[in-house]
Amino acid sequence: MKVLIINGPNLNLLGKRQSQTYGIKSLKEIDTILKEEAASIVVDIATFHSNSEGAIIDFIQKEASKADGIVINPGALTHYGLSLRDALVDTGIPVIEIHISNIYAREEWRHKSVIAPIAMGQISGLGWRGYIAALKTLVDILNEESQ
Amino acid sequence: MKVLIINGPNLNLLGKRQSQTYGIKSLKEIDTILKEEAASIVVDIATFHSNSEGAIIDFIQKEASKADGIVINPGALTHYGLSLRDALVDTGIPVIEIHISNIYAREEWRHKSVIAPIAMGQISGLGWRGYIAALKTLVDILNEESQ
Amino acid sequence: MKVLIINGPNLNLLGKRQSQTYGIKSLKEIDTILKEEAASIVVDIATFHSNSEGAIIDFIQKEASKADGIVINPGALTHYGLSLRDALVDTGIPVIEIHISNIYAREEWRHKSVIAPIAMGQISGLGWRGYIAALKTLVDILNEESQ
Amino acid sequence: MKVLIINGPNLNLLGKRQSQTYGIKSLKEIDTILKEEAASIVVDIATFHSNSEGAIIDFIQKEASKADGIVINPGALTHYGLSLRDALVDTGIPVIEIHISNIYAREEWRHKSVIAPIAMGQISGLGWRGYIAALKTLVDILNEESQ
Amino acid sequence: MKVLIINGPNLNLLGKRQSQTYGIKSLKEIDTILKEEAASIVVDIATFHSNSEGAIIDFIQKEASKADGIVINPGALTHYGLSLRDALVDTGIPVIEIHISNIYAREEWRHKSVIAPIAMGQISGLGWRGYIAALKTLVDILNEESQ
Amino acid sequence: MKVLIINGPNLNLLGKRQSQTYGIKSLKEIDTILKEEAASIVVDIATFHSNSEGAIIDFIQKEASKADGIVINPGALTHYGLSLRDALVDTGIPVIEIHISNIYAREEWRHKSVIAPIAMGQISGLGWRGYIAALKTLVDILNEESQ
Amino acid sequence: MKVLIINGPNLNLLGKRQSQTYGIKSLKEIDTILKEEAASIVVDIATFHSNSEGAIIDFIQKEASKADGIVINPGALTHYGLSLRDALVDTGIPVIEIHISNIYAREEWRHKSVIAPIAMGQISGLGWRGYIAALKTLVDILNEESQ
Amino acid sequence: MKVLIINGPNLNLLGKRQSQTYGIKSLKEIDTILKEEAASIVVDIATFHSNSEGAIIDFIQKEASKADGIVINPGALTHYGLSLRDALVDTGIPVIEIHISNIYAREEWRHKSVIAPIAMGQISGLGWRGYIAALKTLVDILNEESQ
Amino acid sequence: MKVLIINGPNLNLLGKRQSQTYGIKSLKEIDTILKEEAASIVVDIATFHSNSEGAIIDFIQKEASKADGIVINPGALTHYGLSLRDALVDTGIPVIEIHISNIYAREEWRHKSVIAPIAMGQISGLGWRGYIAALKTLVDILNEESQ
Amino acid sequence: MKVLIINGPNLNLLGKRQSQTYGIKSLKEIDTILKEEAASIVVDIATFHSNSEGAIIDFIQKEASKADGIVINPGALTHYGLSLRDALVDTGIPVIEIHISNIYAREEWRHKSVIAPIAMGQISGLGWRGYIAALKTLVDILNEESQ
Amino acid sequence: MKVLIINGPNLNLLGKRQSQTYGIKSLKEIDTILKEEAASIVVDIATFHSNSEGAIIDFIQKEASKADGIVINPGALTHYGLSLRDALVDTGIPVIEIHISNIYAREEWRHKSVIAPIAMGQISGLGWRGYIAALKTLVDILNEESQ
Amino acid sequence: MKVLIINGPNLNLLGKRQSQTYGIKSLKEIDTILKEEAASIVVDIATFHSNSEGAIIDFIQKEASKADGIVINPGALTHYGLSLRDALVDTGIPVIEIHISNIYAREEWRHKSVIAPIAMGQISGLGWRGYIAALKTLVDILNEESQ
Repeated sequence: MKVLIINGPNLNLLGKRQSQTYGIKSLKEIDTILKEEAASIVVDIATFHSNSEGAIIDFIQKEASKADGIVINPGALTHYGLSLRDALVDTGIPVIEIHISNIYAREEWRHKSVIAPIAMGQISGLGWRGYIAALKTLVDILNEESQ
Repeated sequence: MKVLIINGPNLNLLGKRQSQTYGIKSLKEIDTILKEEAASIVVDIATFHSNSEGAIIDFIQKEASKADGIVINPGALTHYGLSLRDALVDTGIPVIEIHISNIYAREEWRHKSVIAPIAMGQISGLGWRGYIAALKTLVDILNEESQ
Repeated sequence: MKVLIINGPNLNLLGKRQSQTYGIKSLKEIDTILKEEAASIVVDIATFHSNSEGAIIDFIQKEASKADGIVINPGALTHYGLSLRDALVDTGIPVIEIHISNIYAREEWRHKSVIAPIAMGQISGLGWRGYIAALKTLVDILNEESQ
Repeated sequence: MKVLIINGPNLNLLGKRQSQTYGIKSLKEIDTILKEEAASIVVDIATFHSNSEGAIIDFIQKEASKADGIVINPGALTHYGLSLRDALVDTGIPVIEIHISNIYAREEWRHKSVIAPIAMGQISGLGWRGYIAALKTLVDILNEESQ
Repeated sequence: MKVLIINGPNLNLLGKRQSQTYGIKSLKEIDTILKEEAASIVVDIATFHSNSEGAIIDFIQKEASKADGIVINPGALTHYGLSLRDALVDTGIPVIEIHISNIYAREEWRHKSVIAPIAMGQISGLGWRGYIAALKTLVDILNEESQ
Repeated sequence: MKVLIINGPNLNLLGKRQSQTYGIKSLKEIDTILKEEAASIVVDIATFHSNSEGAIIDFIQKEASKADGIVINPGALTHYGLSLRDALVDTGIPVIEIHISNIYAREEWRHKSVIAPIAMGQISGLGWRGYIAALKTLVDILNEESQ
Repeated sequence: MKVLIINGPNLNLLGKRQSQTYGIKSLKEIDTILKEEAASIVVDIATFHSNSEGAIIDFIQKEASKADGIVINPGALTHYGLSLRDALVDTGIPVIEIHISNIYAREEWRHKSVIAPIAMGQISGLGWRGYIAALKTLVDILNEESQ
Repeated sequence: MKVLIINGPNLNLLGKRQSQTYGIKSLKEIDTILKEEAASIVVDIATFHSNSEGAIIDFIQKEASKADGIVINPGALTHYGLSLRDALVDTGIPVIEIHISNIYAREEWRHKSVIAPIAMGQISGLGWRGYIAALKTLVDILNEESQ
Repeated sequence: MKVLIINGPNLNLLGKRQSQTYGIKSLKEIDTILKEEAASIVVDIATFHSNSEGAIIDFIQKEASKADGIVINPGALTHYGLSLRDALVDTGIPVIEIHISNIYAREEWRHKSVIAPIAMGQISGLGWRGYIAALKTLVDILNEESQ
Repeated sequence: MKVLIINGPNLNLLGKRQSQTYGIKSLKEIDTILKEEAASIVVDIATFHSNSEGAIIDFIQKEASKADGIVINPGALTHYGLSLRDALVDTGIPVIEIHISNIYAREEWRHKSVIAPIAMGQISGLGWRGYIAALKTLVDILNEESQ
Repeated sequence: MKVLIINGPNLNLLGKRQSQTYGIKSLKEIDTILKEEAASIVVDIATFHSNSEGAIIDFIQKEASKADGIVINPGALTHYGLSLRDALVDTGIPVIEIHISNIYAREEWRHKSVIAPIAMGQISGLGWRGYIAALKTLVDILNEESQ
Repeated sequence: MKVLIINGPNLNLLGKRQSQTYGIKSLKEIDTILKEEAASIVVDIATFHSNSEGAIIDFIQKEASKADGIVINPGALTHYGLSLRDALVDTGIPVIEIHISNIYAREEWRHKSVIAPIAMGQISGLGWRGYIAALKTLVDILNEESQ
């Protein structure tokens, strides 16, 4: 089983970026934890980050056919990345959207996700642990379905 | 450590209720799983369900001072239960809001939660597993903070 | 065949309450007429009134499985009772929403019903006779379907 | 006593038109049933259909002074026929608006009636039986008032 | 010099229609006064009324090329008659829109005219005298321009 | 009989100000024409201009009790002068609002008048002749009422 | 003379609840002060609190016929308690709505009261003293009217 | 194979009407070209124009059962002709909506078509050639489907 | 201790102005009562009225530094007086906004106060007694704070 | 003569992507048909696809000066690609926007194109044939203009 | 060359007024710096402040014909001063609007300027230096144009 | 001291692009002037342009830690570049947003900047001189702060 872990614009700055909002763990540290977690449940993960919507779509188009699910933190593309949305729909595999901060407790424009209506689910505000929860729950659901 | 697990209107019908949307597990089955999960991480849980906003607020006012966190699925109160919102804020303890179905993929009016802005985070669309993910992540965060 | 007749908040004041808007018949008198009407078409009815949304939902959850249809005047819950809406959907039986006054000729906020989109139909503005029309038409439709 | 039964654009296609939404009875069959019903309660009815708002207004202006009430299904004019609305107000006699399908369970633009605020009442979603219910209730109310 | 005087839906009922709002003069009486007024300033007028938008457009298309200006009371078409609007624009001659009642002191939907943005001007709320004021001012302006 | 003629902010610049929109007649010239017109129908007029809403309200409060009607061009106060509106209502005498340009053919914000709902009527887009039409129609109506 | 003092959801937590917003006096202390105040002006008061809209309506329906006025702090029901609104209207006695904090200086959704349009008046932001001001002014007005 | 070519209000003025917006070809010239085009691909066409929505609906109801598709330029009915919309849906055959001018580059209210959501497709801004493109593409698609 | 009592546009007409809405007491009478009330609690008051927003701001800028609080009835400036709002904020002293009529029971545009968000509190609908309640409560709060 | 054929994000998946919505022809197949069509009318075409808005703008800036027109399917950039819009305007050559599916029959957010207001025209819902219709009509218009 | 420097309501309080938002320089100090700056580039400036919109319009009407440009900080009039807007348009000379604080980082209502659409440009958020930047850029542009 | 000068999509076409709106200076010429200006006040500048939001974010992430401030003209990204917004916030250094044309005098959608709320300030409509004014004022402020 394989899961893509995708991070959108500015998420490469995690740890350095406003830590009160986004926590102190770097994206690298989160990736390391995710890899350990994935290994422990015998799942392959491929991680990807880009500041460019086009590059993320290129990655999804190339990798999705070899994967079983996607965990994505679209960064600010959450709110206007309609091309990203279409790319995710086109994969035909389940997507969990994740946000480190609680987007519903911040600026009004962050309350509306253009990705959520086509995702299987969304996790928001649980910090870096949201990635873990997303990965594990996604794998549980995929395992159940594949039985 | 103690966590309140609260379910709002109509969630007592889980399993019987539109199963394509809400899954086939009953609330009782979910409670049993949650209790096992809680036991395995040495946490007490108190579960509660009511169809009445007033009764849920009464429960929160009585129990929250003895608890460390709340996992709540407010049902349709999610969208208009402003008194419930005020009651949750008044507890001063962290709240995770959880929805079995993906509220962002359903009717427009289900996209807006009046609870989310005052919750620590929200999980939506991951089925009954959302409760497990909420409980475990909440406990991890509480443990970290209490260190 | 059995039909539930449900009245929401403040409808127990019918007859006493602003009679220019709601007419001079009390809820008791309407119930009596409905019972005679029901008897004449060999239908059982169970009537219920509460000022509390939670109590109405409790009643619906307990009684709907034994009933074939519902006639409901939700009072002001018409405009915000989303939990009531979910409870009605969950019954799986046909619902006719009825209003004594013409809600479209009153304040703007009364024009929008959160119940109507999930009801089979709605009758508004025909006074206490709306209950009779709702009951008889509902029974006609149920009879036709059961043939 | 005399009642006008008016049907707006496209209602001449009833029975042929999307039957899942509008049922299988033709306008002619409904008219026949209405005439029998009217005869049984000793009421005259005059039925009229046109696809043109102007022609419907012409009919109303000519016939209303000889009638005691109106039952109207304005078709899509419900949502923009402001001239029809003014014509109905000018008659000074009670109007019941009727829709075969539940307009509140369909497209957003069908939820708003420009006729309803000036009608005595509205029946929606009860199929062809809505006409019967409208006619009988209107006559009951007119009889009561004329006593 | 020739001016078209056009009246839209329901204006044939002036005098009979809600007289508190629209006054007691009939459309015929207003036409008579307008003809006298026109004669006194040596202007030809052609008057027209229809309850049908299509018929009014037919009239405008046939007569406008022989006229120098238009005074129109579009009735409720004021608020949705976009085809009428296009027909008036196509004439290329000046149009004064006139309303007997003050449309800005009535229902919200009467505040918005789709005709006004393409008219030379608008007179509202001055009763039947508004027609006189419109005709005389239009003629004064046409005379000035033709000098 | 006495009529107040009031002009709001920037109307003292008529003639100098964008003449394509507002014409070439100065406010002084318009006042002269109005005085001749008034004399010919044996009416007193008092003219007033100020760029300050406060000063216009002071004038109205002082003069309205001695007057029978008001013709007012509120300039840009038309769109937000709620204090002016209250002052006009308080006079208890009829008000005609007049605009030289057609406010409905200009910027969106000019389409909404806060004065119109409390005026007897409104004339818009007929140039300086709008003042004459307003004065004469107002006097005709006052004469009729005083008979 | 008798006045009902009603407090809605979460107001039983006054003193304990966010004291920066709601002050340090408990509901009990406020009730004591109100009783002394009432005694000094020879007025009976009956105080009531509930977290449930239905229970508050039950209380109003039972007690209002024996009372001369109502002072109510509806808590968050202020913003969606339309059934409560209908119940207050049905009493036919004057209602003063009171809020401890200034609802207009808080979240957008707290700016809109569904109760205010049917209340005699509203006091907001004056802390617990708002109850005193409401009670005394209500009694003054009732005394004046009863003379 | 047969295709209906329908033109709504004011399109009979093509060529005479604002030629900068609508081009210099008359409706007659366009009909001639369409007939030649249709002949060359062995298709029958029936052309119709009316300024009246009712008359267009009458035509559609009479002719659609004998036709395979419709090309319609609804003129300004595009924006409010909901009865026309219902009539087109009722035909059950594919409809292409066509506009000579680019409606998205004109007034805001022209951007919204009530016809487009129920059409197969829409062509806008390609002048009279839009009719040709619509006819040929419609026939290609019908031919493909009928294979 | 000193309190400024400020009245905005048209409030000098109290008593003369629509008495059903604003009561029969003149501003002078209210000022007299306020002065007696102030004397009895040993407070200085300075009263001011103007119809001009600019003049009110001038007064506030000159007097606020010598005062401890402000009671203001901004009249219609309540709804658009953003400069007045800024001036009140700049004083740094507490402000109570007061309205004689219940602004939430009148026209929609009167429901929104631009002053309220920066005031300490608001009293609406309690007639002239609202000034007394505002003054006394303001003084009580100031006294408490100064202890 | 040269025409640029540009396809935006995700259109490289045509044929593989939701075929009920987008048809079964791949982008490559469409390109082949377009090239044959172009050859038959002696026109050069240059085709381009990218998932990145920046790359599409780069292409337009480099190639437009050598081209006579553009046919573009902007994919989801249709709805938010304002930079793409500016780039298209800057070319100064005619643009036809094309969509395979009928964007007006899908999600609300797909109804609004930010490109359409600056395009010459738009074709929507005619499948891959829309490209052919766009190319041929564009060339016809360019040929006519260049005569 | 002559430039008018105009400051609207409350700007005379600069330095005293919320210094975190508006800085510590008084209006007098800013005027002094502006005069030195003007002298160094051989430009006359006339400075004006008023809390009254009317007085500012009077100043503009009197002085603009002798000036070459205007730098204006309209204070809160920025958001509703439509009369001021008309007065500025009437001058026919270029206007630069300047704000000390960043109006786009403050309350929602401060984001909308009614002046900006008719100004040459706007500077916001650069503190008192914004006045210098405005003056110097305005003079550069005027010099260039006058060459 | 070092300042980044960033230009977004299509700004590389300055001078060639609609010169009535954007002026005749090329981006290269503006860069040259900025470099001279920077040299004269002993500041380093680094200039960057891209048509791609992702590339601009990459540049900001790499260069901002070595810079003291940013002057950015985001082009059309101003209106939807939320990822760019987040990247600018993350730098922690002051940002001045600049537009060559007055965005408030153009299309409605250009009036809303998603960058402005997180910028220190904004300059709009002053042509290429806006860059100079932005650079110099930014440096002045940075110098003052660093004292």
